[in-house]
Amino acid sequence: MAKSIAAKSIAAKSTAAKSTAAKPAAKHGSKSAPVKHAAKRPSAAAGDDTAITALALPPAPLTPEMAAYFAKCQEKLGFVPNVLSAYAFDMAKLSAFVAMYNDLMLAPSGLSKLEREMIAVAVSAHNRCYYCLVAHGAAVRQLSGDPVLGELMVMNYRAARLSPRERAMLDFAVKVTAEPWSIEEEDRERLRKAGFADRDIWDIAAVAGFFNMSNRVASATDMRPNSVYHGQGR
Amino acid sequence: MAKSIAAKSIAAKSTAAKSTAAKPAAKHGSKSAPVKHAAKRPSAAAGDDTAITALALPPAPLTPEMAAYFAKCQEKLGFVPNVLSAYAFDMAKLSAFVAMYNDLMLAPSGLSKLEREMIAVAVSAHNRCYYCLVAHGAAVRQLSGDPVLGELMVMNYRAARLSPRERAMLDFAVKVTAEPWSIEEEDRERLRKAGFADRDIWDIAAVAGFFNMSNRVASATDMRPNSVYHGQGR
Amino acid sequence: MAKSIAAKSIAAKSTAAKSTAAKPAAKHGSKSAPVKHAAKRPSAAAGDDTAITALALPPAPLTPEMAAYFAKCQEKLGFVPNVLSAYAFDMAKLSAFVAMYNDLMLAPSGLSKLEREMIAVAVSAHNRCYYCLVAHGAAVRQLSGDPVLGELMVMNYRAARLSPRERAMLDFAVKVTAEPWSIEEEDRERLRKAGFADRDIWDIAAVAGFFNMSNRVASATDMRPNSVYHGQGR
Amino acid sequence: MAKSIAAKSIAAKSTAAKSTAAKPAAKHGSKSAPVKHAAKRPSAAAGDDTAITALALPPAPLTPEMAAYFAKCQEKLGFVPNVLSAYAFDMAKLSAFVAMYNDLMLAPSGLSKLEREMIAVAVSAHNRCYYCLVAHGAAVRQLSGDPVLGELMVMNYRAARLSPRERAMLDFAVKVTAEPWSIEEEDRERLRKAGFADRDIWDIAAVAGFFNMSNRVASATDMRPNSVYHGQGR
Amino acid sequence: MAKSIAAKSIAAKSTAAKSTAAKPAAKHGSKSAPVKHAAKRPSAAAGDDTAITALALPPAPLTPEMAAYFAKCQEKLGFVPNVLSAYAFDMAKLSAFVAMYNDLMLAPSGLSKLEREMIAVAVSAHNRCYYCLVAHGAAVRQLSGDPVLGELMVMNYRAARLSPRERAMLDFAVKVTAEPWSIEEEDRERLRKAGFADRDIWDIAAVAGFFNMSNRVASATDMRPNSVYHGQGR
Amino acid sequence: MAKSIAAKSIAAKSTAAKSTAAKPAAKHGSKSAPVKHAAKRPSAAAGDDTAITALALPPAPLTPEMAAYFAKCQEKLGFVPNVLSAYAFDMAKLSAFVAMYNDLMLAPSGLSKLEREMIAVAVSAHNRCYYCLVAHGAAVRQLSGDPVLGELMVMNYRAARLSPRERAMLDFAVKVTAEPWSIEEEDRERLRKAGFADRDIWDIAAVAGFFNMSNRVASATDMRPNSVYHGQGR
Repeated sequence: MAKSIAAKSIAAKSTAAKSTAAKPAAKHGSKSAPVKHAAKRPSAAAGDDTAITALALPPAPLTPEMAAYFAKCQEKLGFVPNVLSAYAFDMAKLSAFVAMYNDLMLAPSGLSKLEREMIAVAVSAHNRCYYCLVAHGAAVRQLSGDPVLGELMVMNYRAARLSPRERAMLDFAVKVTAEPWSIEEEDRERLRKAGFADRDIWDIAAVAGFFNMSNRVASATDMRPNSVYHGQGR
Repeated sequence: MAKSIAAKSIAAKSTAAKSTAAKPAAKHGSKSAPVKHAAKRPSAAAGDDTAITALALPPAPLTPEMAAYFAKCQEKLGFVPNVLSAYAFDMAKLSAFVAMYNDLMLAPSGLSKLEREMIAVAVSAHNRCYYCLVAHGAAVRQLSGDPVLGELMVMNYRAARLSPRERAMLDFAVKVTAEPWSIEEEDRERLRKAGFADRDIWDIAAVAGFFNMSNRVASATDMRPNSVYHGQGR
Repeated sequence: MAKSIAAKSIAAKSTAAKSTAAKPAAKHGSKSAPVKHAAKRPSAAAGDDTAITALALPPAPLTPEMAAYFAKCQEKLGFVPNVLSAYAFDMAKLSAFVAMYNDLMLAPSGLSKLEREMIAVAVSAHNRCYYCLVAHGAAVRQLSGDPVLGELMVMNYRAARLSPRERAMLDFAVKVTAEPWSIEEEDRERLRKAGFADRDIWDIAAVAGFFNMSNRVASATDMRPNSVYHGQGR
Repeated sequence: MAKSIAAKSIAAKSTAAKSTAAKPAAKHGSKSAPVKHAAKRPSAAAGDDTAITALALPPAPLTPEMAAYFAKCQEKLGFVPNVLSAYAFDMAKLSAFVAMYNDLMLAPSGLSKLEREMIAVAVSAHNRCYYCLVAHGAAVRQLSGDPVLGELMVMNYRAARLSPRERAMLDFAVKVTAEPWSIEEEDRERLRKAGFADRDIWDIAAVAGFFNMSNRVASATDMRPNSVYHGQGR
Repeated sequence: MAKSIAAKSIAAKSTAAKSTAAKPAAKHGSKSAPVKHAAKRPSAAAGDDTAITALALPPAPLTPEMAAYFAKCQEKLGFVPNVLSAYAFDMAKLSAFVAMYNDLMLAPSGLSKLEREMIAVAVSAHNRCYYCLVAHGAAVRQLSGDPVLGELMVMNYRAARLSPRERAMLDFAVKVTAEPWSIEEEDRERLRKAGFADRDIWDIAAVAGFFNMSNRVASATDMRPNSVYHGQGR
Repeated sequence: MAKSIAAKSIAAKSTAAKSTAAKPAAKHGSKSAPVKHAAKRPSAAAGDDTAITALALPPAPLTPEMAAYFAKCQEKLGFVPNVLSAYAFDMAKLSAFVAMYNDLMLAPSGLSKLEREMIAVAVSAHNRCYYCLVAHGAAVRQLSGDPVLGELMVMNYRAARLSPRERAMLDFAVKVTAEPWSIEEEDRERLRKAGFADRDIWDIAAVAGFFNMSNRVASATDMRPNSVYHGQGR
C-alpha cells in the first residue's frame, strides 16, 4: 500500500510540475518578466509528495475498510491526501481520524461544505499551518469557484467581501482559536443574531476545534501537502 | 437516556457535596478558620451537572453501541462524563469522538496513561479550559496518586519537579499549543534526545492536538464538568 | 526559629501525606480506577516544605514582634506560611511585607475578605504563580465554603457563575494585570456602575497590584507553598 | 489617466476571470469535484480593480515623469499596479514612493530580486496584508519559477525548504517585523555568518522596513490588489 | 495637610514651568526652530500637580510619624511625591507603602541605589506607567549624572551601553515582569554568573516586583507625577 | 564629507555634555541629592555621535543636491541628523529617504506638523525605537512648547490630556502599528467622526507607516541619535 501511495505521489507531482511548466505567462494576460531564475534553486516544496512527515513511521497494512477508502480517494480525487498516508501507520488512528473528518466536513449540517472549508482555512491561517492551508485552500477555491476567496481565507479573512453570516462565523472561529478562554454568551448570541441555530454553533465550534487539532499534528510532524493541491481550483 | 444522565448527575453532585461537607477541617491537620461565608452565595459551579452546555441540543436516542458504552461508564466511573452527554445530540459525532478519545488516551502507546493525561492538563492550562482542567486534572491526581501533580499541571507545569523526559514532553506539547507555526526539526530532536521514539512524538502531538480541539469545543459551548470530578484523587 | 519552621513544615507535610494516603477512592462516591502508579514517581512537589525557595538565604533572628506573629500563625493556622519564612532572612523586609499584606487582605474594606482573595487568585492565575495559586486558592475555598469557586479562580474566572459585581471586579483586576497601560476612566466607570465606591476601586487596584508583586517575587525565587494548603477547604 | 487605469483594471479583471473559467479541473490531473457553488455568491474580491482603496481621493493629473512611468508599467506589465493608482492623488507622494520602491527592489544589491521579494512576502505574511501578499506573492512565483515558494512565503516561511542563507535572511526580517526592539548585535552576527555583508544587512533591514510601512498604508486604507496578480506565475 | 501638598504642588509646578521658560534654545548649542505653537494647546499634563489621581479620596489626618516624613520630603526634595499624597487617604496604607519602599530602594543592598532605580524604570517602561517613568526616570538621571541613561531606561534598555552586570540584571527584571511563569533556575544562574549573590537576586526580584505593583496602582488610578520631576537631572 | 559629519558630531556632543555638566541641581528648584555617581560609569549613550550605526558602511560622496541639503541642516539645525549620515553610504537611498520624509512631515497637510510628530513618537514608543523616540520626542517638545507632551508620547500617549481629535488620531496610528490586519471601515469611520477628511486619514496612515519603517531600519542597524537632541525643547 505504501508503494501505491508513493507511486501515486510521484505521478501527481510530475503532473503538477508539468501543468506549471506548460503555462505560458502570456496566458494570464500579463506581459510578465520571463522567469529567469527558475532553474537556479530546488523547489521550496521539494519532496512534499515523497517524505510526507518528519517522522519515520512505516505504514501498517490497510484494513479492508481503509483500503476501500483509499481506493475511493484515488478514484474521486485522483490521489490519496497525504494526511491519510501520514495516519496510515496505525489503522485505529486512521479510522478514527477519517470518521471524525468525514462527519464534520461532509455530513449534513446547517453549514454548507464551503462554509466549513472557509472555517478550516481561516483557523489554519491563524495557526500558519502549511499542510491545512494548501489542502483546504484548494477546497475553498473549488467549492466556491472563486479562487480569490481561497487566497483571502489564507491571507486575511477580514479583507474579504463576505456576507454578515460568513463574517460572524469566521470571527467566532478565529476568536475561539486565538483566545478560547474568552468566549462567552455574548459571542454565541452574535452567532444567533447572524442566523445560526445552536446546532450550527456546535458545528462552527467543532470544525474550528478540529483544525486546531489538525494544524498542530501537521506542524508537529512537518506534514507536507500533496503537490497536486497547489494547482487545483485556480 | 437523557433522563438517566440527569438523574445520575444529580446523584453525583449530591455525593460530591456530601463528601465536601463531611470533611472536618481538622482532618487536614490544619486549624483552619471555620467556613463562615459558606451559605452566603450560590456555588460558582451551580448547575454544572444539569445544564451541561450553553447550547439547546436535545439528546438523540443512543445507538446500542453507545448505550453500552454509557452503561460501562456508569459502572466503572459511577457516572457518564458530561462531554459524552454533550456530544449525545448526534450519534455519529459521539461515536467518532469516543473512538478517537479512547484510542489516544487508552490504547497502547510509548507514553503512559499518566503522561497522556499530563499533556492533556498542561495544554488545557495554556488554553484555560474549565471542563478539561477539571476532568483531566482529576485523572492526573488519580493515575499518579500525587494530588499536587494535578494542581501543578493546572497552575504551571514549569514549577513541578519533573523528570527530564516529562519536562521535554510538556515543553513540546505546550509549544505546539502556543505557537504551532514555530515547531521545527530541533524541537523533535529534543524529544528524541529525551528518549522518545518517532511513534511517541506522534502521540505527544496527537494528544496535544486533541486537547487543543476539545478545549475549544468546550469553551465555545461553555461545557461544564461533572461536579464529582472535583473531589476525585484528593 | 528556622528550626521550628522546618520542624513544623515536616510535620505539616507528613500530615498532608497521610491524609492523602488515607483517602480510599471509594470515599468520593466514584468507582475510580485503583491508583496503580502512586509509588512510581516522587511527588511533583517533593521538598516544598523544606526547600522553600531556590535562594540560599539563611534566616535572621526573629524580632520579638515577628516572633509573636509567627507564633500566632502557628496557633491560628497550625503552620507558618512559607512566604513568611522566605522573607525571614531580613526582618525589615519581613515586617514591611507583613504590614502591607495584613492591611490589604484583612483590614476593613468595602471588599469582603473573600472578594480580596478572589482577586488574589484571578491575578495569580494570569501570572501562573504556583505559590499564590495554592495558598490563596485554599483561602477562597475556605472563605467561600465553595471549593469549586477556588478551582474556577485558578482555571478561568470567566467560566464561574459570578455576580455582576464580582465579575466587574475581576475583569478590572485582570485587565490591570495584563495590560495596565490601557486602563482608562471608562474602566473605573464600569466599576462605579457595578456599585464600587472610589475607595473600593483603590482596594481592587491595590490587591491586584500586590499580587502582581508577590507573583513575581515567588516566581523569581521558585517559592514553594506549604503542602498543607493543598488539602484545605476541599 | 484615472480612466485609463479603470479601463485597464476592468480589462485585466475580465482576463483573469476568463482564465479561471477556462481551466478545466481535469487539466490539473486531479478528478476534483465539479464546482457547484460557483454561481452562488459574489466574488470575495469583487471590485478590487475598480474601488482601489476605501478613501475617496480623486487622482491628480500625472506629471510627465509619472505619466511616462505609468505608460512603462502598462507596456511591461500590462497594467498599472493599484498601489501606484492609490498614491496618484498627489504627485509628490507618488514620486517619492516610486523612487524608494524602485531603489529598494530593483537597484543593484547583494540580495537578488527574488530574495528581496521573499522578504516582502514573509514580512507581509506576519502583518497579514492582503495587497502586498497578492502582489509580491506573484512576484516570488514569477522570479523563482517555483509557484509553491510563493505559497510558502505567504503561509509560513519556516515550512519552506530554504538555503541557510535564505533562512537567516527571513528570520532577521521577520524578527525585526515582530519585535524590532529586541534586535541586537548577535542578530546581525548571525547574518554575517550566513554570508551577508554589512551592506546586505542594510538592504534586508530596508526591505523589511519598507514592507512594514506599505503593509500599514495598505491595511489602513483597505487597498485592493489588481486581480490580474492572482493568476500570475502559477 | 492636603492643603500644604496642594500649595507645594502649585509652587513646584510654577518653578518647573519657569525653569523651562527660562531656557533659551541657544543654550543647548542647537539653533532649534522657535517654539511657535506653545500657546496653542493646554499642556498634556495640565493638572498633574493638583488632581493627583482619578479617585475622590480625601486625605486623612497625617499621623505624627507620617507628618514628620512628609516634612522631611519637603526639606530634602522640596516637595512631597504625589504617590505619597495619593496614599494619604489612609494612614495604615501610607505607612506600609513607605516602609516597604524605603527598605527596598534605600536600605543597604548588594545593588546600588542607581541599579535599583534602573530596574524601576525598565520595569515601568515595560508596563508603560507614566507616573513611575517620570519619577524614577528623574532618579536615574540624578543618581547617574547621565541624563541619557534615564532616557534609555524609559525607551529601550536594550539600546543602552551597559555593563554585563547591568544588562543581566535588567534582562531578569524585565523577564520576570513580562512572563513571570517562565523564570527558572537557568535565569537565576545567569545572574549568579554575572556576579550577583543570592541576596542580590532577591533584591532584583523584589524591586522588579514592587514596581509591577506600583505601576498597576498608578495606572489603575491615573496617578500623576509631580511636574517638578520632569526637569530634574537634565 | 564624512569628516565634517564626524567633526560636527563631536562638537555637538561636547556642547551637550557641557550643558549637562553646567546644570547645577539647584537650578531646577529642587533640593535633589548631590549626584555622587556621575563619574563612576561611562555614559549609556557613549559614542552615539561618532559610531552612528553598527554597520560598517563608508559614506559615499554627496551629490550636489544632498551636499546642499546637509549644509541647510547644518545652518538651520546646527547639525546633520544621524539618520541622514546613516543613509549617506548610497546617494539614491539617501535622496529617496529625504524626499519621502520631507513630503510626509513638512509638506502641507490637514495634519499639523506637531500632529505628525506626535504620531511619529507614539508609533516609535510602541516599537521602542531609541533613535526615533529621541529625535522626534525632541520635535514634539519643540513644536508644542510643552516638554511633558513629548515625554507622554514616549511613555504612554493614553495618559496624556489630549483633544478627542488627537486621541482618535493616535489610537488609529497605534492600532495600525500593533495589529494592521485588524483595521476596518469602522476604524476609518471613527477618524471621520473626529473630523478627519479622507486625505487626512491617508496622511495618518502614511506617517504611521513611515515610522514603522524607520523604527525597523534604526533598530536593525542600532542607529544612534545625535546627542544634541536630548536637551532640545526641555
